[in-house]
Amino acid sequence: MVANYDEVMKLALERGFYFPSCEIYSDAPAGFWEYGPRGVNMKNKFIELWRRELVRRDDMLEIDGCQIMSKSVFVASGHIGNFTDPVIKCRKCGSSFRADRYITEKTGENVLERMAEEEIKALIKKHNLRCPNCNGEFGEVSKFNMMFPVGIGPAAEEAYLRPETCQTIFVDFARVFKTMRGRLPMGIAQVGKSFRNEIAPRQSLLRLREFYQAEIEIFCNPDRLNEMPKFEEVKNTVLRLFDGSSIIEVTAEEAISKGLTPNKLITYYLALLIEFYDKIGIDVKRSRFRNLSVDEKAFYASVAFDFEVETSIGWLELVACNYRSDYDLKGHASTSKQNLEVLDSATQSKVLPHVFELSMGIDRSIYAILEHCYYKDEQHDDRVVLRLKPYLAPILVGILPLMTKDGLDQKARRINSELKYDFDTFYDESGSIGRRYRRLEEIGTPFAVTVDNTTMQDDTVTVRHRDTMQQERINISDLHQYLHKALGRR
Amino acid sequence: MVANYDEVMKLALERGFYFPSCEIYSDAPAGFWEYGPRGVNMKNKFIELWRRELVRRDDMLEIDGCQIMSKSVFVASGHIGNFTDPVIKCRKCGSSFRADRYITEKTGENVLERMAEEEIKALIKKHNLRCPNCNGEFGEVSKFNMMFPVGIGPAAEEAYLRPETCQTIFVDFARVFKTMRGRLPMGIAQVGKSFRNEIAPRQSLLRLREFYQAEIEIFCNPDRLNEMPKFEEVKNTVLRLFDGSSIIEVTAEEAISKGLTPNKLITYYLALLIEFYDKIGIDVKRSRFRNLSVDEKAFYASVAFDFEVETSIGWLELVACNYRSDYDLKGHASTSKQNLEVLDSATQSKVLPHVFELSMGIDRSIYAILEHCYYKDEQHDDRVVLRLKPYLAPILVGILPLMTKDGLDQKARRINSELKYDFDTFYDESGSIGRRYRRLEEIGTPFAVTVDNTTMQDDTVTVRHRDTMQQERINISDLHQYLHKALGRR
Repeated sequence: MVANYDEVMKLALERGFYFPSCEIYSDAPAGFWEYGPRGVNMKNKFIELWRRELVRRDDMLEIDGCQIMSKSVFVASGHIGNFTDPVIKCRKCGSSFRADRYITEKTGENVLERMAEEEIKALIKKHNLRCPNCNGEFGEVSKFNMMFPVGIGPAAEEAYLRPETCQTIFVDFARVFKTMRGRLPMGIAQVGKSFRNEIAPRQSLLRLREFYQAEIEIFCNPDRLNEMPKFEEVKNTVLRLFDGSSIIEVTAEEAISKGLTPNKLITYYLALLIEFYDKIGIDVKRSRFRNLSVDEKAFYASVAFDFEVETSIGWLELVACNYRSDYDLKGHASTSKQNLEVLDSATQSKVLPHVFELSMGIDRSIYAILEHCYYKDEQHDDRVVLRLKPYLAPILVGILPLMTKDGLDQKARRINSELKYDFDTFYDESGSIGRRYRRLEEIGTPFAVTVDNTTMQDDTVTVRHRDTMQQERINISDLHQYLHKALGRR
Repeated sequence: MVANYDEVMKLALERGFYFPSCEIYSDAPAGFWEYGPRGVNMKNKFIELWRRELVRRDDMLEIDGCQIMSKSVFVASGHIGNFTDPVIKCRKCGSSFRADRYITEKTGENVLERMAEEEIKALIKKHNLRCPNCNGEFGEVSKFNMMFPVGIGPAAEEAYLRPETCQTIFVDFARVFKTMRGRLPMGIAQVGKSFRNEIAPRQSLLRLREFYQAEIEIFCNPDRLNEMPKFEEVKNTVLRLFDGSSIIEVTAEEAISKGLTPNKLITYYLALLIEFYDKIGIDVKRSRFRNLSVDEKAFYASVAFDFEVETSIGWLELVACNYRSDYDLKGHASTSKQNLEVLDSATQSKVLPHVFELSMGIDRSIYAILEHCYYKDEQHDDRVVLRLKPYLAPILVGILPLMTKDGLDQKARRINSELKYDFDTFYDESGSIGRRYRRLEEIGTPFAVTVDNTTMQDDTVTVRHRDTMQQERINISDLHQYLHKALGRR
């Protein structure tokens, strides 16, 4: 049975995956959520796999920069001018609304984010729209910049919380390329927080004001986008491409020969991405790369594929894959008056690199994984099982004494102490064994080790498997190796 | 030879450990630094060890909360009222200075952070202090709050970037305790960014406006601070306690019996902390726990030990260990009107927990480790060696073909591809083998694997050790296991 949003939310709140920030306070602003203990573990493991399957595999360099950046950065990036949403404000009660979304909700009219203010005003008049809170009239349409300004030092110098982590990568590119002896194409990756002052944050992890991104920017020579020997590794990887009407399944190689993707470089990274999401536990049969139309693309993108997955609340964008051309480096070079060209050693020519990016939303990905892995087992009392991959599970193994007597609990505690340095373990002695299994299954724990009377005789334990509920008996001394293997480690 | 600050800085800038944020822009604000590729790897590994040796070892729960928090949080915490520095502003040119620090620098007078404004004014008059930029007169002494305000949504609701990560832990305590079925004492840990609008940031990673903390808050029943069975594990751990005049070396057990530390709970965590810093590569003989006097303690602390290490620029505080009593939970309970008491299952009584914290500065710790591990080898051409522990090294192993011919490079590349999923490797074929060894040593790489002509005959490689420069020959098929062991993994 497929899960719905409310079921996942209930699990998240009650089992320590995520919950609202500052929730004990009535002035807690919307759009801020925290990861609880289970969520943190899962998020950390998500990032670990991202590092392994994308960053390390592709020999990328990872950096970690500041969230507060100077004003010039966002003059150059275009965010000060362009990163706005249209807002309408009630003349009577002062409530503000995001104009495009409000009009679409009320009228069904398709309002584009970048529609001119006059057009929006005309729509409000046409439909005679009024404030839903007090029925007041709306005032002028204004532009609301979604960046958070921050004043630095006693003089309050103008700076901003970054609205996307990639600006750090562009601004740091020259030093990283030079000190790391870079060669094109070169990937620079970063995990970190970004901030957007959304007018209407909603749906927990799906539209946040403070959120985690894992961004990868590939700096490349635009004349050599088909020189990609490692493309061979992924040529048979299947991509599901969506052109706005239907999904076509093709191999990476076919995608290029049929002209569905523009070049080997872009196609290679789309393939790495789908391989990653497959490994992380997304049902890739319910995913697609949506080729964005001219109207839909961000202001800096010339080619754009959104990686989307199907959920109970519709298709959800997890990754924006944008070919940003030299939009960013050109802007930063001109605003900073620095020459950001580098030598392409393959052609021995100076080039201002173009950029292809994989801009991943971590929080949304976590939500999507939870939903795709949530399973209500109707054959067994509707037990809830989170079928997470072992290497993503917040707890890998529960250690349970069958009873807290005859030394079973001490024995189980010793096993726990032994394993907990290397694995995420959880010792639990309270409640019936059945209830303890259920609690472990709900948070996605793949294995439960039970210490019973036989253990006291022969130093074996039972290992119970979350999905099949099958048990096997193994020696305590083999447990370490057993779990190691389950994680796919060597 | 002991390193100095400038040598470490040079290495950091040139080898990708850290560098200034937004450095291509002239309006880049001071006090913001980025981690480059080597620094990110090292920081991530630092956090991994912290997790293993403190969080997992002690069965703590880790959370990850938002950096922007509502105003009420900081009304309750006291930061809105108390988190200020005294500022003097030049009447003529408008430059601002942190009054206490400026007076101390100019006069040698000991100015305390919390000195009254009148006293500061008197000192300025007494020494006839004037603006160092224009010789203008100073105006009134004012208080400058070091928190960064942030306005949320179109109505710009008042919120702040947190000045310490622990406020998240206090505000989330009730939910975490309940949903995780907590028992006292219970540790909640968090790694994340904090923000302080320093008037005079300086010394790269040492006084930042945006910085990483790894904080641990131990919630405990104040009546049971000596009920700590696991204290046995650390009773022989040596603590170096500093009372303001001399350092005394005692075991944890002696510290308590001599009344140097107040109870088992605090002493246990001080011991875990010193064990962690020993493992991470700090020379603990150059460290001390400084028992803070009444004048020095933060406004919320009733007992405080600063963990300090000796560096070329003096003693540096890496961790503040504060007994915060019920200061925080009481404040949040009263401001939020929520009951934050919990049941202590051991005594079956309701209790408002007290808190002991280990508030660790990650950036400063990284600096201190770099300085303690920096070694100029005078016996060998002053080669610079960063003697990092293998599990902390940004690159664990360099893979070097002796020459780029006869297939040596392909062979080396294959070894690299094989190892890079599990270890941080670096393939390098450019320059003489000696230069390549030097580059690896400088960034702390413990091992260099060289592929030579013998390799092509018998599938063995040489493994060179960074510190001793000794080489040994091993089979390629044993490399994986070899590196695994070097990391202390099983």
